[in-house]
Amino acid sequence: MHDFKYINNELYCEKVKVADIIKKVGSPAYIYSHKTFVEHIRKLQAAFKSVKPLICYSMKANSNLAILKAVVNEGAGLDIVSGGELYRAKKVKCPAERIVFAGVGKTEREIEDAIRYGILFFNVESLPELELIQKVARRLKCKASVSIRVNPNVDPRTHRYIATGKKESKFGIDLGLAEGVFSNTARYPNIELCAIHCHIGSQIVSGEPFVEAFKKVAAFIDEIEKKYKVKIKYLNLGGGLGVIYSNEKPQTAAQYARNILPIFKGKKYRLVFEPGRFVSANGGILVGQVIYVKRTQVKNFAIVDAAMNDLLRPSLYDAHHEVWPLKRSSRTEKEIYDVVGPVCESGDVLARERLLQKLHDGEYVAMMSAGAYGYVMASNYNSRGRAPEVLVKGSKFEIVKKREDYQTLIAGETIPAFV
Amino acid sequence: MHDFKYINNELYCEKVKVADIIKKVGSPAYIYSHKTFVEHIRKLQAAFKSVKPLICYSMKANSNLAILKAVVNEGAGLDIVSGGELYRAKKVKCPAERIVFAGVGKTEREIEDAIRYGILFFNVESLPELELIQKVARRLKCKASVSIRVNPNVDPRTHRYIATGKKESKFGIDLGLAEGVFSNTARYPNIELCAIHCHIGSQIVSGEPFVEAFKKVAAFIDEIEKKYKVKIKYLNLGGGLGVIYSNEKPQTAAQYARNILPIFKGKKYRLVFEPGRFVSANGGILVGQVIYVKRTQVKNFAIVDAAMNDLLRPSLYDAHHEVWPLKRSSRTEKEIYDVVGPVCESGDVLARERLLQKLHDGEYVAMMSAGAYGYVMASNYNSRGRAPEVLVKGSKFEIVKKREDYQTLIAGETIPAFV
Repeated sequence: MHDFKYINNELYCEKVKVADIIKKVGSPAYIYSHKTFVEHIRKLQAAFKSVKPLICYSMKANSNLAILKAVVNEGAGLDIVSGGELYRAKKVKCPAERIVFAGVGKTEREIEDAIRYGILFFNVESLPELELIQKVARRLKCKASVSIRVNPNVDPRTHRYIATGKKESKFGIDLGLAEGVFSNTARYPNIELCAIHCHIGSQIVSGEPFVEAFKKVAAFIDEIEKKYKVKIKYLNLGGGLGVIYSNEKPQTAAQYARNILPIFKGKKYRLVFEPGRFVSANGGILVGQVIYVKRTQVKNFAIVDAAMNDLLRPSLYDAHHEVWPLKRSSRTEKEIYDVVGPVCESGDVLARERLLQKLHDGEYVAMMSAGAYGYVMASNYNSRGRAPEVLVKGSKFEIVKKREDYQTLIAGETIPAFV
Repeated sequence: MHDFKYINNELYCEKVKVADIIKKVGSPAYIYSHKTFVEHIRKLQAAFKSVKPLICYSMKANSNLAILKAVVNEGAGLDIVSGGELYRAKKVKCPAERIVFAGVGKTEREIEDAIRYGILFFNVESLPELELIQKVARRLKCKASVSIRVNPNVDPRTHRYIATGKKESKFGIDLGLAEGVFSNTARYPNIELCAIHCHIGSQIVSGEPFVEAFKKVAAFIDEIEKKYKVKIKYLNLGGGLGVIYSNEKPQTAAQYARNILPIFKGKKYRLVFEPGRFVSANGGILVGQVIYVKRTQVKNFAIVDAAMNDLLRPSLYDAHHEVWPLKRSSRTEKEIYDVVGPVCESGDVLARERLLQKLHDGEYVAMMSAGAYGYVMASNYNSRGRAPEVLVKGSKFEIVKKREDYQTLIAGETIPAFV
């Protein structure tokens, strides 16, 4: 579901013609639909209404302040993974009791900042991390709330880079070790072990891996509650819901709810969800202009002014983004193109061997479903300033992050006298 | 060859103890050796002394202004690939006649800026680009100097992402098409076709692919000079010289010269080289601190505060960087670690399954050979500020790019009133 569509063969984002935005902000540019983001939050809220979940948008997918503000306004919380993301959460005034903090490498400073802000809980990924949180909380003379991220050893059947719930993963604590924590709470007097966390990976399109993992985790909670007289207040089920990039047939929020809610019938703990890609992927596009159509004996290249530094997913994961021209042609002629950027690497490919309407220099194309893990992974590689981000709501649009100019590229650099 | 070594079991960069730098600038941090950079330039200059080449350092490998200034001070020029890189070249006052401009997607504005600055020549990658340069030069009422990048269709036997001289590549023009350009110079009255360019890829360790490609190109020049009465003033041989990351045995500059100079005996054109990685790779390290040593049933993880957002090469290319502890231990105990970052992706691995001295929380490790394609590809993924860059010369060191703080992360972002 998204709000990019053709009207009279012109691509629109909600009620705004994308070409009009580009005329104003230039190319390349990221364009987001406000409605697509908030509708995905609402769909999850509706699907799980019966259990009143806490939905913490996983901002690592797209952390633009305007996006964060929009989801927080919907009543959602935020899933953060760094001090920088905590800073962003504060900037949009996300209530502390709606913030959960994940990540395998939280530093002492990050832990302290989060405790002081009063976040709901940390998703703890290892025993040394638990020790460090205990140490910081004792120093601050308070109790820190903690969710133990368990690793259920389930194969999510997704890209190896975004699979996180197998036993070879750097994430989570295996169930045996986790049980050890609950059997020895005296070791952590400044920690309230109030939650269990389980996130098995990302872009998971079928229901089974979730059901398999969550059954394991529900049974684990039953066991430790009985055995160690602990009380689990939250079960954080992470994210991972797949989205449509091409021909995927992922679960809808409603199907997902129907699949997993029976597992938790009668349970007293509150469910927490951390959707990232599900909320944001289809909410954004990256628009680029065709600089040159280059024909070789072997291939046609549409060389666009967007590149791997703008959208890394195709290079990094062989990820698929549909390519839509901003102006749909009545020309029937089609050709196969590699859509590539100007960066001096053969890996700078945005889309491989796509049958598209015949393209010409100066035309614009949109890389679809670029709302998640798009701008957040952008770099200045090849000394390219990062593209602007634009948010559309209805018939309005506004730049929510400025294009980086040449001055920005060298900000903070100095040449020592000794050179 | 580089200038990082142990003295009394402490890692030094030139005459500075790396731990002393980290004490001052924090972790993670990039640290560069001035000497390593300039020595590599000097080695190339010495190896090719007999033909007085123009060596244009390919700044896309590492474009920090201090590094650029250092190589320009050695008499080198710069190979640029974007308007941003031209801006950097101007900032370090690189003489225009030592600048060459490559890249498949030069925009009209970039072409105009470069012509106005008076660069030595463009490396032209396609016929549409040649047309655009012609158009801009006519508008500016001048002649633009152009090198035609030919694609010799040679397999450089390197990673597919950095192979550029095969016929499936987006780079260069095949020899037949290139000949067509020289047979039809009347079409380009505002262009001086003064050079040929050939760059077959990167990190090439053996001599044969170079020799094979350059013989083809030399024969091509002989042919077009005879056939079309053109005069080639420069032959740009690109870069591509391999470096030592692990067990590679690349050619030295001297061996490279001995291999290829015979091909050009008696030729009148001047040779141009565009070394990037060769100059910079071993000139830099990325230092990270071990936040947690996490032991699982299957693996040991050294979770460090540097991540894929700081150094993307291992995630993107499965690239190998040696891992050296800052303090070499007298402990004989060794363990196998995955060295990983805090980023919430399984792909955030800096080094896989390395036998290292037993590590403890708080210790520091250096990812070696991170001087090329390290910082330039860094991003703010997971809202992590980019690490600082530090340049060492002898017993002095200075921050040449500041660490990005939380404020920097949100610079240029605004929340519209309509959200």
